[in-house]
Amino acid sequence: MTGSKRQLHLNLFLMNTGHHEASWRHPDTAPRRVTELDYYREIAALAERGKLDSLFLADTYVLPETARHKVLHGLEPFTLLAALAAVTSRIGLIGTASTTYNEPYHIARKFASLDHLSGGRSGWNIVTTASEGAAYNFGERPLPEHAERYRRAGEFVEVVKALWHSWEPDALLADKASGVYAELERVRPIAHRGDYFAVRGPLNVPPTPQGEPVLVQAGSSADGRAFAAGVAEAVFTAQSSLERAQAFYREMKARAVQAGRSADELLILPGLYTVVGDTEAEARELARELDELTVPAYGLQRLSTLFKVDLTGYALDAPVPLELLPEREAIVGNRGRFELIEEMVRRERPTLRELIRRTAGSRGHAAVIGTPAQIADTMMRWFEDGAADGFNLMPSHLPGGLRDFVDKVVPELQSRGLFRAEYEGRTLREHYGLPPVHTVRARVGAAEASR
Amino acid sequence: MTGSKRQLHLNLFLMNTGHHEASWRHPDTAPRRVTELDYYREIAALAERGKLDSLFLADTYVLPETARHKVLHGLEPFTLLAALAAVTSRIGLIGTASTTYNEPYHIARKFASLDHLSGGRSGWNIVTTASEGAAYNFGERPLPEHAERYRRAGEFVEVVKALWHSWEPDALLADKASGVYAELERVRPIAHRGDYFAVRGPLNVPPTPQGEPVLVQAGSSADGRAFAAGVAEAVFTAQSSLERAQAFYREMKARAVQAGRSADELLILPGLYTVVGDTEAEARELARELDELTVPAYGLQRLSTLFKVDLTGYALDAPVPLELLPEREAIVGNRGRFELIEEMVRRERPTLRELIRRTAGSRGHAAVIGTPAQIADTMMRWFEDGAADGFNLMPSHLPGGLRDFVDKVVPELQSRGLFRAEYEGRTLREHYGLPPVHTVRARVGAAEASR
Repeated sequence: MTGSKRQLHLNLFLMNTGHHEASWRHPDTAPRRVTELDYYREIAALAERGKLDSLFLADTYVLPETARHKVLHGLEPFTLLAALAAVTSRIGLIGTASTTYNEPYHIARKFASLDHLSGGRSGWNIVTTASEGAAYNFGERPLPEHAERYRRAGEFVEVVKALWHSWEPDALLADKASGVYAELERVRPIAHRGDYFAVRGPLNVPPTPQGEPVLVQAGSSADGRAFAAGVAEAVFTAQSSLERAQAFYREMKARAVQAGRSADELLILPGLYTVVGDTEAEARELARELDELTVPAYGLQRLSTLFKVDLTGYALDAPVPLELLPEREAIVGNRGRFELIEEMVRRERPTLRELIRRTAGSRGHAAVIGTPAQIADTMMRWFEDGAADGFNLMPSHLPGGLRDFVDKVVPELQSRGLFRAEYEGRTLREHYGLPPVHTVRARVGAAEASR
Repeated sequence: MTGSKRQLHLNLFLMNTGHHEASWRHPDTAPRRVTELDYYREIAALAERGKLDSLFLADTYVLPETARHKVLHGLEPFTLLAALAAVTSRIGLIGTASTTYNEPYHIARKFASLDHLSGGRSGWNIVTTASEGAAYNFGERPLPEHAERYRRAGEFVEVVKALWHSWEPDALLADKASGVYAELERVRPIAHRGDYFAVRGPLNVPPTPQGEPVLVQAGSSADGRAFAAGVAEAVFTAQSSLERAQAFYREMKARAVQAGRSADELLILPGLYTVVGDTEAEARELARELDELTVPAYGLQRLSTLFKVDLTGYALDAPVPLELLPEREAIVGNRGRFELIEEMVRRERPTLRELIRRTAGSRGHAAVIGTPAQIADTMMRWFEDGAADGFNLMPSHLPGGLRDFVDKVVPELQSRGLFRAEYEGRTLREHYGLPPVHTVRARVGAAEASR
């Protein structure tokens, strides 16, 4: 934005009572509030006080079996983000919408509407649905296979972008004198006919403040990475170590360049799980408290899913039997998370109960349990050593963990010159330092012309 | 609610710059604001100051050709209503969602989410999509025929209601001590398999403040009326005269009773187009100003659609040729509106230009152009003479026409004891005087038990 020193981009991964799976049981959280607007209003106000770039809501189209022991997301992202648009003024608002069980016309329209309502602060986290259970809420057909989901996603995004651009920017005249509201010669059908969709267009919402909501992606499979390199402007990713994160960062920037884009137009934002304390001991004590609230039955369910082995019936207080660990090659999907846990099991031989507790917070993401300075140290290291353009912040519990981050870690980052002291832009694109959409369009046009 | 005198129920039909088709050209309106949240915030605050029961957004899934000369709706209803939920506290929020081009799981979830966000103020205006153009934004198949759309709508609503009731009211324990968040034995799949949908459920949103958002319907065909009598709790309807409205009112109440419901559980809310003036002359002058802003090309398009005859090329300043009028039987859909206009043409022999102007405001709904007392007189007459339980208010222009209604007509209604001076309830169900959902369920259960 300002041409000055490169700055961190910080997104709040807003998840119910926080990212520790037992956070809802902690005395400082209020799990019944996750369906109340005031709860989110309070969290969004905190995030905005911390000058965060954006907040983000994940989503799922099924009631998970784990709801027995873990708090739900609570609300549907579009309605919640729109409500938050009305009670915030600067922070970006990123919502998840699946390309597997939606129609592009509806999604194009809802994000366009959110972009108008928020004055250009909307972003779309593009996902494909990976849950078998979700499939059966939308018909009798099972989940499409992975590669097909991504083919559909590619076409879906193409249609949505075409709809967003179906109006020329100044086709809306609203000229009272002549009686011409819209110059329809400059609003064109998209006439899309592809393998998955037929959509005539144009969109029935005029061009939005950002031109295009910011596109975000979080898939880590080969298909997901290729997709992200082609269309995403920010990537949320789970990286368990600096080295892994550096490799991912290099790969994604290279892929973006290969796809004809600038490396700066694809922000890499690894997840960062934090437990903040004024002293390291205080942070560790809080982390221990949270871990001890973990429900073993839930942890067994979670690890069974990850290991693809039914762990119920195994002794909780005996070391995890090594023969339980599957071959790495058998793990599709959460491979990175699996490898991290597998290494820990081989190295430290924890009991099953210990393993459950030790994996109950960060879910394979980087984690720092420590003082504001320690957290800022890690963030600076990752940021300066080619592992991250910023972070997808995952507070242990909400709103307390976010309050600690905003009041203690953010000032530390600001004093190091790593993070803004005030918002400079108005739109999410501006916060993220992304070029305005018309510039992108113009450059793409120029690139095409020079071929 | 209070057992006192029967009171009017007033809903604001919130449509862009107002209900006169040329309202966007009037000096008092700001058509560019229809994509801005602050515009709607101002209107919602006015409506809440007037203690209105609810506000309502129509919707359409296509860019109409008429956008050349008429302002768009602007925003998508769910996002706008959710944003308004955050900046209002009492007024009900009714959104339109089509059963023709949506999935019941998404719709059940979005309304559940809106009901939580608003503290129990949500309502669903159930429509079937009647636009050929919309069909082609959702695939290559043409619009399903009328009766099929209603069969699908019936099954759609059945699925949505089942999803809303897939949780027993107290299945969510959120018990920190035991670690049980939800008692999944009391959250059940709906296992729906019908002609149009297969939905396993349960919903991934806990029970909402109202239990069920209020169901609204506006179809006036035989299929639409039968559907409304079976499932709707409020009906928005276009009735051009007291006599027609009385007949409709009697019919719908009788149909509700036939369907095994109480007549009180189906509110009849005819549309009421208003132009308010301190004197009748002032109101008529404003109405004339608006009519003169009508764009003839737009009016020709509108009448051509209604008459199913291409009117372009006919002389604007010659009397409408009677041979242009089709047989009444040829009109499917807007028959009531057609008959009203046909009678006027035969009786008064207006020119085409005059006809365009005289039909540019109320679109077949009842209209009162006059003083607050005159408007209140008509409302009282309809209310007391068995034609209405309240009204779907259609101000000529916004926000000015609503401000006049709230500041001048509402006090008149209040002083006559016809309308609340303060909100008494918190939820839309309470405003509308509808029974809580659990009571309905209990009574249905009792009725079944007594068979």
